[in-house]
Formats: sequence, structure tokens, C-alpha cells
Amino acid sequence: MIKKRIYLDNSATTPISKDVVKEMQKYFSESYGNASSLHYFGRQAKQAVESSRAKIAKLINAEIDEIIFTSCGTESNNLAILGVAKAYGDYGHIITSPIEHYSVLSPCNYLKNRNYQITYIDVNQSGIVSPTDLINSLQENTILISIMHANNEIGVIQPIEDIASKLYKINQTRKQKVYLHTDAIQTAGKLNINVKNLGIDLLSISAHKLHGPKGIGALYVKRGIKIFPILFGGHHEKNLRPGTENVLGIVGLSKSYEIAYNSLKDHYSHVLNLKRRLEEGILNDISDVTINTDKTNSLPHILNVSFKYIEGESLLLMLDMYGIAVSTGSACTSDSLNPSHVLTSIGLNTIAARGSIRFSLSYQNTLKEIDYVLSVLPKIVNDLRLMSPMWKKHTVY
Amino acid sequence: MIKKRIYLDNSATTPISKDVVKEMQKYFSESYGNASSLHYFGRQAKQAVESSRAKIAKLINAEIDEIIFTSCGTESNNLAILGVAKAYGDYGHIITSPIEHYSVLSPCNYLKNRNYQITYIDVNQSGIVSPTDLINSLQENTILISIMHANNEIGVIQPIEDIASKLYKINQTRKQKVYLHTDAIQTAGKLNINVKNLGIDLLSISAHKLHGPKGIGALYVKRGIKIFPILFGGHHEKNLRPGTENVLGIVGLSKSYEIAYNSLKDHYSHVLNLKRRLEEGILNDISDVTINTDKTNSLPHILNVSFKYIEGESLLLMLDMYGIAVSTGSACTSDSLNPSHVLTSIGLNTIAARGSIRFSLSYQNTLKEIDYVLSVLPKIVNDLRLMSPMWKKHTVY
Repeated sequence: MIKKRIYLDNSATTPISKDVVKEMQKYFSESYGNASSLHYFGRQAKQAVESSRAKIAKLINAEIDEIIFTSCGTESNNLAILGVAKAYGDYGHIITSPIEHYSVLSPCNYLKNRNYQITYIDVNQSGIVSPTDLINSLQENTILISIMHANNEIGVIQPIEDIASKLYKINQTRKQKVYLHTDAIQTAGKLNINVKNLGIDLLSISAHKLHGPKGIGALYVKRGIKIFPILFGGHHEKNLRPGTENVLGIVGLSKSYEIAYNSLKDHYSHVLNLKRRLEEGILNDISDVTINTDKTNSLPHILNVSFKYIEGESLLLMLDMYGIAVSTGSACTSDSLNPSHVLTSIGLNTIAARGSIRFSLSYQNTLKEIDYVLSVLPKIVNDLRLMSPMWKKHTVY
Repeated sequence: MIKKRIYLDNSATTPISKDVVKEMQKYFSESYGNASSLHYFGRQAKQAVESSRAKIAKLINAEIDEIIFTSCGTESNNLAILGVAKAYGDYGHIITSPIEHYSVLSPCNYLKNRNYQITYIDVNQSGIVSPTDLINSLQENTILISIMHANNEIGVIQPIEDIASKLYKINQTRKQKVYLHTDAIQTAGKLNINVKNLGIDLLSISAHKLHGPKGIGALYVKRGIKIFPILFGGHHEKNLRPGTENVLGIVGLSKSYEIAYNSLKDHYSHVLNLKRRLEEGILNDISDVTINTDKTNSLPHILNVSFKYIEGESLLLMLDMYGIAVSTGSACTSDSLNPSHVLTSIGLNTIAARGSIRFSLSYQNTLKEIDYVLSVLPKIVNDLRLMSPMWKKHTVY
């Protein structure tokens, strides 16, 4: 019988925090109107939506009209990529990396089948894109670069500012300006995001990765960017996203972002402390492990580890029996038998990639939880290895 | 000072009912996992999603795998229309009506600009589509018919069963089968929906019109229908809708649908009773009014009325000062100066269309509320008419 469960899969999703629930609950009974309606109830809803928009804009140093609410991070990424592609016509060139989330790779793949060219720029062994390589791969018909702010599986942070500043210079001489999009779904609320300092044109965020509700996201769209909608209907969200505004979700997104922002430094050091303890414990107590997360240039809350000679999925299920929730790669691909495209892109072979686990932490986790994990993990890994034909072969030779 | 507000704009959106809130609140603290994750939290979330899917499927007599969750009614309509169009290639013919919601008309218009042909089949003075006319407008390359189950502005119910049965016969002889989609966003929870009896292939619903949360919808997609996704990412929802499942929203949708279904008859007669009282009161006490809602063939909760010689928007704002919330046409077009496309399609001239108000009721409304409306409405209409140049002209001649 499991007494207390430990949730270390916060990059897949997070529980809604109590303060966010409290804020959302106000809107269950009040402000339930349609924000497009002209009467009292509509105005109340509109006020909730617009004050949330203003709050988010302020937190990322954007203008209020640069925030577009969407239904999730996937939709934000789709709107950025397909929306810019459509605004430019029926062909063009897009540069991205092979370690993006599927909500970036899949719309790129869709475009690839429809007259667009896609370049996947290599990453190094840490998963980092080279700004120089990226700039060198620009073509005359390039319309968009989409590089994630930080990776959801290994936590590596990309040099977005450097890319943006190099691109800014190039764009001065180009007829066809190239836009820069970044998927900041893992970094929002974890790193300080200032769209002007970052120098980006489009940026995606999602609430449920930062202790807000599922089903709500936003896309920052810099003023003047040419972008078309991908869903069609009423005139909501500056004609970029139709559908009755999800007032509750929007309030939840802005509140969760505000909380994360106000505690950013505290949460950062707490979570990093947990990660360091976890990493050291694993390296000290378990042999044949590789840390796939860059030591310095990564998010504080993600630690990806390959345990040689075992299957990540078996380890996940064993940990689950001990009440510990982790993942192998991203949740979105959990039904796939293929090894993680992120891990193979940074050079892991199939066996190492399949033997990997992502621990993703939150400020809600405690040192006690990490110590519990460290108290059971070596034995679980050992037991699994004893059952593994790969391990037997390894110990014989 | 307004003591109590009366909400008669339930076709724009509805307050979440207490029972739905109660159900959703369970999932704030429990089952917050990502439904794609393999561990305990993921399985809990998956279970919540799948039991909700099964509940909705059962209520509309569909198979469980025929229910696809989306982010809203607009997305459901877009997925049905753009998804079928894309599955059939880059051209084809679609038949719809001129009184559809913009979430149907706008994707049709998008396709019209991209090699598709769109036929807008005429409606009669009540807003009803003729199944015979519709069948007669079929072409060899017709791929889809999209006719709403009932209209959101005037409440008229379309003869979907009749259309479906005529289409079924025709489809037996056709090489290119024609699919039938219906936007049931206004009828779900108001009329009994049985997809097999209706004979439709695709059907859109939305939670926030039936006392559920905003930001969640569903699309019924009959087995075997050729349809492509319109958003791209992970393998969620049978590859038809990527993005982390909105567990709270999905639970809210199924609960609100279940409540509406279980009380359908009681709510129907209660709301119809309110509408009859409202209609009679208006006709008895106010001159120069036209009821735009068909007496017999309409939803119980919608009453659309033209008050000659005044502006609907002025009336809306005056009623709002008395604490009464109504709308002119749909909320989605409230920022438009054009008269309602629905009212002009059923033959109203611009002046009559602009002088119209939609009262839309819910089971939560009371006779006392209707009587209050009737106690103030004649005076408000009279005051507005006294200020109206159109009225002065009318009374002089």
C-alpha cells in the first residue's frame, strides 16, 4: 500500500496550485458571461480576460495587444508556424531543430508535404543549436526560424538571444524578413522571459506546465508580424483565434504565471537544489548511468538519466509501484515504441535512449521526497538489471 | 442600484451549474496527471477522460471511439469542415446554409478562397432549409453538407433526419459519398440527440452552452469517416486533436451533458413555458413587434423579436440598466455594425434586423424573472421609440 505518492513528472503537467484554484473559483459564480456580449455579464467577463492579458503582457514585457489566448501550447505552436506560413503564401523555407516538441515538428512536417522546405539544424551532444550554423542555413525564401527556449526532455536551454541578435543584423539587409519563434512552454515561470530582451517575434506558453489549468495557452505575437489564423469563426482575439473566450482558463493562466514569476528566484534555487541532490545521489549509488541533461546550461527542474542495460519503461513502472511518478521522454509520445527523437539527436544509441528516464521537479517537491527516491532507486535499477539479458551479457564479458 | 440581475443570454453562454462545479472540483486536487503518462497520475487522468468519453457516447448513442474532444464548438465545426475537406484533397464542393454560425461560414469561406466550391442553400421565412432543394444542389464533387441542428439566433430547428434519410438513398448510388455534418451546439442538452436516429456523420457540441465550462467541446465522428486533423502534434484523440487532454474541461462537459440529458423533459417544458409567457406578454403589451422565431419548429429557449423603429443595441443597453441581459443576434458578432446575416436571410430588411433582440432562456430562469422583464420592457421600448426619428416619422404619416 502506497502511503504518499511523489510526483516527479512536472514537465508533463502540474497540479493546479491552491492559489490558482482560489482565483479561478471566483469566476465559477461571477463573471461567467461571454466576453463578446455587451451587457453587464459580458463586460465582467471581458474585464477578467483583459486584465489577465495585461498581467501576462507586463510579466513578459510585451504590449497588451501582443498576447493572443489559445487553447493550449500545441495550438500556440501550430498558430505560430502554420499562421506565419499561411500569411506568406503557399511556399517558403522554415528552419527548426530536430529536438523540438512534436507540436512544432508535426506542423513543420505538414508544411513539408505541401511545398514548404524545412531545414533541421543539427544540435551538439548537449542538444544545443549553433547560432552560426543556423544563420548559415538561411535562404532567400526563409520565412521563419522556430527554436525552443528549452527542451522538454533534457532541459537544455537554447541561445535564443544570440540567435535573435544575429538574425536582427541579417534582417536589416534582407527583403524577406525572417521571423523568430520560440516554444517557451517549459521555460515560462522557470526562467525570466522578457520578449524584448530575448528579441523574439513569437513565443508560446501554456498554463498547465506551471501549476495552472489545462486547456489554455497563449501566443505572443509581436506587433507588425504577418500572421493568419488557423481556425475560423468570430472576431475574437484580433481575428487570430475564434471561439468564446475561456475566461476561467485565462484567469488561471495569468494567475499561475504571476505566482511563478513572483517566486521565480526562490523556486529556481529550491528546485535546482533538489536536482543536484538527485543527480549526485544517482551518480554515487548507481553504476553505468549517463546524465543526458547539460550540467550548467539547463532548466533547474529537468534531469534526464540513461540507466544502461535496462528499459526506461520498466523502470518507470517499477518506480510507479513505489509511488514515484516519472516519465520516459515526453508524455505525448508515451504510446510510441520508438526511442526519443531528442535523445537520438544528441547522439544516444537506441539502447541508451530506451533506458532513459526524465525526472522533472517542481517547487512543490521536497528534499525528503528526493531522498526517498534515492533510497529505493538503486535497488530497483539493480533488480531490473539482474533480469536483463543485456546486463548478463555485460557482466560475463 | 440593481438588486438582482436577470440573465437571458443563455445562447451566448451559461453559468456553470453547481453540480458541474462540484464534479470538476474533485479533479483540481486529484487526477491532475497527463492522460498520456503511464504512471498512476496519468492513469487517473486517463480514466477521467475515458469515462467522460463513454458517458457522452452513451448519451448520444455513439460508439466510444467516435467522440473526439476539442477546445470549443468553433474548433469542432472547423475540424468537421476543414478536416473532411483536407481528407478529400485540395478541391471539392460543400453545401451549407446562409444562416449557419460563423464557425461554419468562416471555414467554408476560407475553403472558397482555396479551390473549393460552396453552395449556400436558401432558407424559407422561418429559416428552414428544404431537404429537396439541398439534395437537388448535390454535384458529382460534393463532399460535405453542413447544416446546423438549430439556429443560435432564431432557434429554428432544421429537418436533419429528413436530409439524412434522403442523402442516405442518394449515397447508395454515388461513387463520392457525401458526409452530413450538423452543428448541434445550441441543441445539445435541449433536444434529444441520437446520432444514429439523426443519421448524421459528424456532430459538434460545446459545454458552455449547457451550464458546463468554456474551453471544451467535442466532435462526433462516425466510424469510417475520412477526416484529417487541423492541428498537429502528439498522438492524442486518435491522431485527430493533439495537445494534453483538458481533463477538468472534459469532466465538466460530460457532467453538464449528463445533467441536461437527465432533466431534458422537465427543463424543456419549464423553459418553453417561460418563452410562451414572454412572447404573449410582448405581443399583448407592445405594438409593432414581429416574432422572428418559428412558433412550433424552434428550440424552447430562444425567442427573437423585432421591435420596429428602434435599435436593438439601444434596447439591449437600456435593459442592461434594468439588470436584464439579452443580446442582439449572436455574441460573436456583437462588435459588428452589420445587421444579423441570419435575420436578413429570412427576409428581414436592415431596419427590422437591426431592431431585433434575442432572449435566450435557461432552466435556471424563473417566471418571476420573465414577469419582471414584462413589467419594464413596454416602457423601455416606448421611451426609445419616443426618441427615435423613425418612430416620429411613423406616427406622423
